This record gives sequence, C-alpha cells and structure tokens, in this order.
Amino acid sequence: MSRVQPCGTLGRVLFPLFRTLAPMSQTAAVVLAAGQGTRMRSSLPKVLHPLAGRPLVGHVLDALAPLAPARTVVVIGPGMEAVAQAVAPHPTVEQTERLGTAHAVLQARDALAGFTGTVLVLYGDTPLVPSATLERLVAAQTGPEAPAVVVLGFRPEDPTGYGRLLVGPEGLEGIVEEKDATSEQRALRLCNSGVMALEGRVAFELLAQVGNANAKGEYYLTDVVALARAAGRRCHVVESAAEDLLGVNSREDLATAERVVQERLRRAAMSAGVTLSAPETVFFSWDTRLGEDVTVGPFVTFGPGVTVASGVEIKGFCHLEACTVATGALIGPYARLRPGARIAENAHIGNFVEIKNATVETGAKVNHLTYIGDARIGSRANIGAGTITCNYDGFFKHHTDIGADAFIGSNSALVAPVSVGDGAMVGAGSTITSDVPAGALALTRAPQETRDGWARRFVERMRRLKR
Amino acid sequence: MSRVQPCGTLGRVLFPLFRTLAPMSQTAAVVLAAGQGTRMRSSLPKVLHPLAGRPLVGHVLDALAPLAPARTVVVIGPGMEAVAQAVAPHPTVEQTERLGTAHAVLQARDALAGFTGTVLVLYGDTPLVPSATLERLVAAQTGPEAPAVVVLGFRPEDPTGYGRLLVGPEGLEGIVEEKDATSEQRALRLCNSGVMALEGRVAFELLAQVGNANAKGEYYLTDVVALARAAGRRCHVVESAAEDLLGVNSREDLATAERVVQERLRRAAMSAGVTLSAPETVFFSWDTRLGEDVTVGPFVTFGPGVTVASGVEIKGFCHLEACTVATGALIGPYARLRPGARIAENAHIGNFVEIKNATVETGAKVNHLTYIGDARIGSRANIGAGTITCNYDGFFKHHTDIGADAFIGSNSALVAPVSVGDGAMVGAGSTITSDVPAGALALTRAPQETRDGWARRFVERMRRLKR
Amino acid sequence: MSRVQPCGTLGRVLFPLFRTLAPMSQTAAVVLAAGQGTRMRSSLPKVLHPLAGRPLVGHVLDALAPLAPARTVVVIGPGMEAVAQAVAPHPTVEQTERLGTAHAVLQARDALAGFTGTVLVLYGDTPLVPSATLERLVAAQTGPEAPAVVVLGFRPEDPTGYGRLLVGPEGLEGIVEEKDATSEQRALRLCNSGVMALEGRVAFELLAQVGNANAKGEYYLTDVVALARAAGRRCHVVESAAEDLLGVNSREDLATAERVVQERLRRAAMSAGVTLSAPETVFFSWDTRLGEDVTVGPFVTFGPGVTVASGVEIKGFCHLEACTVATGALIGPYARLRPGARIAENAHIGNFVEIKNATVETGAKVNHLTYIGDARIGSRANIGAGTITCNYDGFFKHHTDIGADAFIGSNSALVAPVSVGDGAMVGAGSTITSDVPAGALALTRAPQETRDGWARRFVERMRRLKR
Repeated sequence: MSRVQPCGTLGRVLFPLFRTLAPMSQTAAVVLAAGQGTRMRSSLPKVLHPLAGRPLVGHVLDALAPLAPARTVVVIGPGMEAVAQAVAPHPTVEQTERLGTAHAVLQARDALAGFTGTVLVLYGDTPLVPSATLERLVAAQTGPEAPAVVVLGFRPEDPTGYGRLLVGPEGLEGIVEEKDATSEQRALRLCNSGVMALEGRVAFELLAQVGNANAKGEYYLTDVVALARAAGRRCHVVESAAEDLLGVNSREDLATAERVVQERLRRAAMSAGVTLSAPETVFFSWDTRLGEDVTVGPFVTFGPGVTVASGVEIKGFCHLEACTVATGALIGPYARLRPGARIAENAHIGNFVEIKNATVETGAKVNHLTYIGDARIGSRANIGAGTITCNYDGFFKHHTDIGADAFIGSNSALVAPVSVGDGAMVGAGSTITSDVPAGALALTRAPQETRDGWARRFVERMRRLKR
Repeated sequence: MSRVQPCGTLGRVLFPLFRTLAPMSQTAAVVLAAGQGTRMRSSLPKVLHPLAGRPLVGHVLDALAPLAPARTVVVIGPGMEAVAQAVAPHPTVEQTERLGTAHAVLQARDALAGFTGTVLVLYGDTPLVPSATLERLVAAQTGPEAPAVVVLGFRPEDPTGYGRLLVGPEGLEGIVEEKDATSEQRALRLCNSGVMALEGRVAFELLAQVGNANAKGEYYLTDVVALARAAGRRCHVVESAAEDLLGVNSREDLATAERVVQERLRRAAMSAGVTLSAPETVFFSWDTRLGEDVTVGPFVTFGPGVTVASGVEIKGFCHLEACTVATGALIGPYARLRPGARIAENAHIGNFVEIKNATVETGAKVNHLTYIGDARIGSRANIGAGTITCNYDGFFKHHTDIGADAFIGSNSALVAPVSVGDGAMVGAGSTITSDVPAGALALTRAPQETRDGWARRFVERMRRLKR
Repeated sequence: MSRVQPCGTLGRVLFPLFRTLAPMSQTAAVVLAAGQGTRMRSSLPKVLHPLAGRPLVGHVLDALAPLAPARTVVVIGPGMEAVAQAVAPHPTVEQTERLGTAHAVLQARDALAGFTGTVLVLYGDTPLVPSATLERLVAAQTGPEAPAVVVLGFRPEDPTGYGRLLVGPEGLEGIVEEKDATSEQRALRLCNSGVMALEGRVAFELLAQVGNANAKGEYYLTDVVALARAAGRRCHVVESAAEDLLGVNSREDLATAERVVQERLRRAAMSAGVTLSAPETVFFSWDTRLGEDVTVGPFVTFGPGVTVASGVEIKGFCHLEACTVATGALIGPYARLRPGARIAENAHIGNFVEIKNATVETGAKVNHLTYIGDARIGSRANIGAGTITCNYDGFFKHHTDIGADAFIGSNSALVAPVSVGDGAMVGAGSTITSDVPAGALALTRAPQETRDGWARRFVERMRRLKR
C-alpha cells in the first residue's frame, strides 16, 4: 500500500508554509528564547515545551517560513544546547547575561552584519502570531518613506501591566510603561506586544544607544521608539488580535495556548469537510492531514506525522502517531497506530489493537486485541483476536510477513522472523516458529484431554478449604 | 437474562413520542430536504448527517410524531434516493430544479390533495424544533377565526441576514428581507425562521401565486404572508427559543447542534437520577435509556439502541451500542459492548473486553482482555483474562456456549461451535475444539520443558552479537 | 522500589490539612447531614455522593480539620447508618423528625454539653467552603467583645429565594426571608448561606428559644440572629465567594461542584509544574499527588490514593487508582493501574495493560495487552505482549514472582503460584505451571505441524458451501 491519497484541502489549510510566497526576501528575524521560564517549574527550557506536538519556538519559526527570511537568529541563554538543537539549522547566539530585551537582540548584531532589510523581533514563547501578521509588519516597514520601527500593538481585555502605545499625527509617538503613565494614558487600550520590525540599516545602531538607567537596570527594546524619533525617524503601529499574542509564562498559559491552537485546528478540519461529532474531545498536531468526509469520533488524539485520506472513519478512543491511513479504512474504537503504521485502502483496525512499524494491506482485518509490530499483513488477510507478533527477542527486532488472503487463527503467536504464505492458515492458539507455505495450514496443538468430574471434585475440595 | 428493567423515568424524558397525543390529526407536514449542503463538503446528503446517532431529518420526523400528522411529505432533490430510504415509509416528492422554497413546498401539492387541516412546513436541516413548538404553531392556526399563515419567529443573538417579522395590530403584517429593510425595521429583533403553519384549504393556492420577480429569480415561501393578507386573511407569529431553530449548513453547525442535543440529553439523564461525574465527556444517542442511580464515569459513548437498568455502574472509557445492561451490572473501564450484547444482573464486564452478540448471564464475570462473540456465558461463570471465542472461520460465524458456574482458564481459545458444560473448567492456555462435559476439566497442554542455563547462554551470545 | 519521591509541592497545595494550625482549639462543629435529598433521585444518602473521589460530607470534615475542632458532631436522619460509618470516628446524633435547621442543630446539645468556645454550623451538602473561610468565621466570633452569632454571607449571581442579610451600624441587624422582604430589601445582594458561628455559651440557649410559628411549622436556625439581638448581643457577617457556597441538591448541582473542584485541582497541578495538555479532560481525586515535570496527556482519570513522582509521563487514556508511580516511569496510553500497583523508576507500562496489586521494579517493561495481578516483576524484566498472570483459581488468589532480567515470551500464561528466576526466559505461547530456575529457558510447546494445501482445499470447500 502506502499509496495514501494526498488530502489536499486540509493540507493547504494546515500548512501555511505552502502558500504563495510574498516577495519578502529582504527580511531577517531575531527570535528571543533566552528566558528561563521559572514560572513553568520545569527542567525543560520554556520554548521547548510542546504545543500541538511541536515546541513553542517551532511555531514561531514556522510562522516566519512563508516570509523566507534571509536569516533567522535565535537568542538563547547559557546551557540551552537543547534549544540550539531544536532550532537547527537556524543559528543561535548566546546571551550570557540577562540584561534586557534590547541587550538580547544586540547579541544578533554580528550574525546580521551588513543586512539592510527589515529585522523582525519575535519571542520564542509567543507562538500564535500568524504569518499574515508578520507580513503586515514587514510591509509597513518597507518602502521609500518607511518608518524606522513598526511595533505590533494589541488590545488585551485587561491592559493592566502592559506598556501603552501613544499614537498621534506622526504615527507611533511613544511607548509609556504603565507605572509611568498618566491616568489618561492608562485609559488607552492599545498596548505594546514587544514584537516589532526594525529597519536593518539603523536597527543595531539604535539598539546600541539604549541605556539602562531604570529601576531594574535593564536595556529595554521599547526604548528604540524614542531613540528613532529623536533621530528624526517615524515609527508606526500595526495592530493584531489579542489572542494571537498570547505569551506562555506558566503551564496554565501553555494550556490556554493549546486550547487556542486546537480550536483553530478543529475549525480548519471541519471547514475542510471533516466531521467531528465532539470537536472539543479531538486533539490534533500542527501537521495533521485529514481528507474530505473523514469522520472522527469522540476522544481521539493525533500525534505528529499523521495523514488520513478521504472517507476514513476513525471511531472513538483512538491514538494515532506518525502513520498513514488510506481511503475507506475503518479505525477503532480503541486503536493505537504507532509510528510506521501504514493502513491501506479499506483495511480495518479494531479495538485494543496496536500497530507499529507495519503495513496492513488493502482490505486486511485486524479487529481485536492484537499486537502487530514490524510486519506486513497482506491484502484481505484476516488476523484473529489475540494474535501477537513476537518481534523482539530481548536484543533484536525481527520481521513477520503474512501473505494475501492468509487467515491467522485467534490467540496465536507468530515468532519472528517468520512468514505465512498467501492463502495459508494458522490454527487457533498456535505458536508459529517456522515459515508456513502458501495454501498450507500450520498449527501447534497438544491433544485435548478431558478429565471427567475433575472440576466438580476440585470445586468441592476448594469449598471445604474456604470454610 | 434479557429481563432488563424498563428504565421508565428517563425513558419518558427521552421519548416525547410517548406523551399523550393532542387531538391534532388534522395536521400534515411538508419537510424540505432538497438542499445539497455544499458547505458540508460531503458526498452524503446534508439531512443524512447524524446527530446524536440519527440523521438530521430523523429528528424532524420524530418531532412531528406526537402530532400524528395525517401525512408527512419529504421534498428531496435529484439523486437523493438515500434520503428517500431514510425517511420511509413517509413519501417523498422530488424537486427537480431548485427554484426556491415556495416552489419546493408546491411539489407536495398532489401528495396533499384534498387535505384541509393545517400544513406545517419544516426543514430537514433544522433538527432541534421541539414537538411542543409545533403543537403551538398548529394550535395557533386552528379554530373558527384562525389566521391563514402562522410563522415561527425567533430572536437570534445576531439578527443580521434574517428577514424581520413586522407585527402590528393585525398580527403579522409582513416579512421584510434585511436588504429591503429600513433602519427602524433592522432594529427589530424578531426574525423569520421559515417554519410555518398554513391553512390547508388555501395553502397551495397561495403558493401558486408566489412570483419570482426578484434578484435571484426564486420563488420565496415568505411571500405567502403578503399574498394571504392581500386576500383579506390574517397572519400570526408564534415565538420560539433561538436555540431550537439552529440550522445545519456546515460541519461546524453540525458540531454546534450536537453540543446542544448532548447537553439536553445529559440534563435529562441527571434529572432522572443518573450520576454523570463529568457530563461534558459523556455522549448519548437520541434513544439512550438509563435507569435511576446509574453512574457513568468520564469518557463514555452510547451508540443507538442502548438500555441500561437502574443501579448499573459504567466506569470510564466505555463504548456501548445496541445492547442491554441489567440491574447491578458493573461495566468497564475500557469495555466495548457491541450490538447484541446482553449483560444480565450483577454481571461484570471489565477492561479491554469486547462483547458482541452474546449473553452474559447473571453474576458472570468477564474482566480482562477478552473477546466474546456469538456466545452465551452462563450464570456465575468466570472467564479468565485473555480468553478468545474463535467465532469465525473466515466464512461462517459459530456459537460458543458456556454453562453456569464454568471456569475458563486464562489465555484460552474456544473454537466454535463448541460448548463447555455447567461447572466445567478449562485449563489455562488451552485451545478447546471439542465440547467439554459438565463438571469436567478440559485442557490442551504440552509438558513444560526446562533447559537449564539456556537463557544465560542465549543472553551471552546475543550480547556478543550486539557489540 | 516503593521509594516513591514525595511530591511536595502539589502535595502541599492539595492537602490544606498539613498547613500550620491556627490556635483555634476552642472550636466545635455541627454538620447537618439529615436531608434526604429527594431531588437526587437516589437510594444513596445525598451527603455520600462522591465529589472528586470522596463523599460530599468528607469535604466538609476535611475543611474543618485545620481548625482542629474539639468536637465535630454530625446530625443524620433515620436509617442513615451508612453516613454514620462514613464520618466515623466523628460522633453522629439522629434527628428523628425533620423539624427544621434549628431543631437539627439542637440535637447536638448533649454532645456539646459544657463546650464554651465557638460552635460552627455547617452543611454536609455544601462541600466547597474552604478552611480559610471557616477560620475567618471563628476569628470573627472570638475575643472579648465578640458577637454571639457570625453568619457567613455571600452574593449569588441570582439572589432569588435567599434570605437577605440586613447590615447596619450594629453589624448584622437581621435576616429577612425573601417572601417577607420589602422591595428595597430584595434589592440587597448579600445573602444568608446558613453557615454560621455561634458562641458556645449561649448557642443552645438561643436555639431552644426558636419557635415554629411560621407557614411550614419549622424551627429555623436563622431566627437565632433576632433572638441574640433581643438578648442584647451583637451579630456579624463574614463574606465568602459565592462559588464556595455551592450546595448540592441535584445531580446537576453535583456535576457543577465536580467541575469547580476539578478546575481547582487542575490549576493547582499546573501551578506546581505539571503539564496538562488538555486540562479539561483530566480528572483528579481530592488526594492526587503529582511531582514536578509530570506530563499528563488527554483523557486521564485519577481515583483516590494516587502518587506520581516527578518526571513521569502519563500518556492519554489512562485510569489510575490507589497506586504509586516513581520518577521517570512511562505510563500508557490505555494503561490501567489498579489498587496496589507500584511502578518503580523508569519502568514502562504500555497499552491495554492492567496492573493490580503488583510491583513492577526499576526499568521493567510491560508494554502490550497484558494482565499482571498479584505479582512482582523484577528489575529490567521484559514482559511480552499478551502475557497473563493466572492469579485466580476460582477460590483463592496466588502470587507470581518474576526475577530481575527475566524475559517472558509473548502470549504466555503464568499459572500462580509460580516463580520465574532471575535472567530466566519463557518461550512464547507457553503455559508455565512449575517454577523456572534462574538462567533457564522454560516452554510448553507442541511441535509445529504443517498440512500442505489444507488451507487451499478448505477455502474451496467453504466457498462452495457459501454459494
């Protein structure tokens, strides 16, 4: 099999990566990912916590992809090799001391030396900013009389704690921190997200001028607005939906972001012709691809790397990861498809069945209480309840090959490496260690012994004992 | 067993069908179901998409049932034989061209020839209208000075796009489409649902007068109001809750309708004395019947045709369809009861167990990792973990009969047709192919061989290989 | 193993019991639990319905624990022995006739004879009142010029039906029932919760003066306010969040309370460093203890008595009760840990696996379709798919002991009592009834028979039959 239909529609919805690229090659990005995230209470760096099956920072990098940045530099903290690995091949620079956001962006100065386009500053813990918003930011910073700085603004439900954007006839005229704001300024609802686009030619010059004469002694990125204006340059604001700017600082924030992403993925799936009878109980990965007229029952989770073709029914309680399911297949309930499961057209995978690194060919049935690992199940083969492929000897994994139209009797163990030929049968309860020729029957079975009255006597004895 | 208690209370709540019938035999209904539902992106006709385990149009027909209509005619589109089958025995008429709602209703003219009562016009994709609302509509259209037309109105949260109902001293004085409405009229919140009751004597006469001199060139049902008034007849409005008039045009609408129906079913279950510890994770079918003091854990789904008697505990992660469960039984977690499972009083069905077309008699236990298909399990029998009834030979299904007080050792395969007598035992790991007499022990077992030191030598060899 | 790490942080959050005790030994409590709860439609007394795995009344007793009451008396109705058992060792008194709340509290007079501190009156069906609120109530009733009565007030979203608290310069000046209230009084939003603190010296004197000259002929506890003031004593109000005063009168109320409790437990877990990717699908018990960097997938339920150490991953669809899981273990998906399961460091429990009263030692793997009951699985042992410990002979449970580094081949049955030595192996498909020495291989296997062409001929014959 493996001739899984491309499930174009949702694919397109889920993969903004494949959209027509705007002519924006003159973009570079600095992604700040040096924060420790102490409120996460985790030994894992914050930006590596997964969201819809991918690290937070991966979402940011993916949002950048359609802009095809000339270079993307990720600023990490000391000891964050795991982040460097996760963002490769993008280069990282280390901010050895945490001296503020302006200081963090400055670490990318050498990596972006000579770059004259637009420099986007993004945050590894703010994973929901859409590509289209970044494109708007870049567009606003591009052109003959472009502003030196474009800040992404938003209107949070509760603006407490955010810097307010002061917009006037000259565009963005300043950013005032809440603690320094007048009561009139506090009434403003347009806030600073921290995301911004800077003109590459002046960005690092401005950043180098930022001072740290403030209560915390930090270098704040927001100061570039005042510095740009002092240098006679204009600044602008581009506005974004508040939901897109959700930052993750705690596990509760992470759960909130997950909810937002899942709702977007569910809506995209439904728009593409997928039936989710209980959408709130279905969890997708960022890259899940589902064809038209797929139906998904309640309580189903998709790990990364799943492709399901049109017309497939996935019943409740299924768990899929890194697998493909072809048209007309029937999955579940309680089916677990592990990495490398390839389910062909019209195959059935039933309840309490685990499939790992195995191909189940067209029309084959694996319906009950079965473990299939490292195997091929031929077309139309029928695998009885309780069948186990014994693929592991404690040291190595071995392959089981079952031919087309084979019939494996229930409760059998197939000790790999072993093959069962086309149209062959295995008797129920057998342990098969030698290959079975096509068309043959193989079985291992001790003769059935009957001891008349034994059970009756046993019960009488045990009842006496139990008294 | 099969003497499952009728679980009256919830039964009554869930089956409005069984309420006292109002004397309304002079009602007929036209259900419009010709729409293609392109926004569903489905090859299945829209009105056949399931809601709580039943097609959308089935909900409409069920809401009509308490009114006992003299005739119900369903208007379908070309090629919708599947809808015709689904609504049988109700007759269908085909609207070959989609020329508007008035034109659609007109297709039922011959089917309702001579009918002089009230004609209800309903929509196959508007499944939540309650019977009581239909009864109010009919009542409003009945009597000596009854209006010719009664329109069902509602107040949506956002009335944008809906026609507004103009109510004055003479009742319903007109319906104005939003695009033709004055700003005063737009401020009205009472909107046209499209559902209406027409006097049978004049209905088709009025419909025949409807013209298509409008932008889309369609014949609109709403025009009957103006035509009735022009003919000197009054029109009225009956108001309904907006939620009841939810129409399904997309998979998202379908998910919304499912949520509404599920919430109603959950509330009905709880009012009837069922404990749902996590109601938002339990999914019912329209016809689920649960007795008092049933408790249902989180993550449970009920397909159509399930009856559960009082005092049953259904633990989490269960999947039930077309089965009965008697008083005091204990089900799950992770139990799958498939069609034809009949679980008797105080029987236990445990984890990773699948029961299909089988009777589990009083007090029997099937607790772990078992497949029981096409079988009878006698009273108090104990089925060991990993037991499989081998009911299928690739061509035919066969029956397994297990007597009262039998004990099936773990990991056994029972090759049907086969019977195990009352009080008989089967030794663990056996494959039983011949009948076992009552009170006997049967087993198939090769003698245990022990090869001293073999494992130690194997491990040493493999470790060398692995280096 | 069993050296499970104490998972301090969440432990502290979840167990207010362990907080520093305020010096409040001069408190006693009367918990009213005599109500029948007819709206529950249940044969179980209302206060015994479980909430987060513990009876309603247990939550009330637990909230009292940090106050270390000198005595807690529970007032029950006739025939409520089950409640008396559930609240033991706290004494109960029976209210034989239901004559009102004042009458109910009066039943505790003898049990509290001579007590001169603060008497708290609580309700067994109002389970969410936090300890801190009770402490505030007691503090308000304590001191030289303390009021005789302190009533716990709250501001419900909809005050309809509640008595209003009349607060004036002298503190709480009265309680007026809604039906007797003026329209001005009805506009007041501060309502009577019924919870109160009474000065022990006068409490029963005041209660004895309460009359029943009202429409229902009942003795109302609220009357003590007027009586105290008539005796020249002051009364006060302490205010509480409305959510904390949710009373359970129906299964819907119970579901609401469960939702509130679960949301609190989820937030506490996340604050303590637990990742819940889908918090709304995880259900805790009141006493669940989870360490830092535990990750819990969607659809997981925790029964009472579960402790999970830091760094454990619990995948989706798991069901845990009364078990311990040590650092680095990997659980699920679809794992069921039953009471007495003890999972050691870095052990793996996989899909469709049930563990009951068994220790799985460090690094052991039980990954697929297995039942382990009444057993020890030694360190690093590998249990093949489909393994069953046959622990029950119909009368007694027996123990299975598997040594370190043992390898149990797939689809084996281990008939207890039986032991498999360190480093021993069991061949796939075996039924082991005798002990296996360390380092040995044991197996039971009939020789594999092959009947060439048999399957082909069988298929031909069946096809003819099926025609």
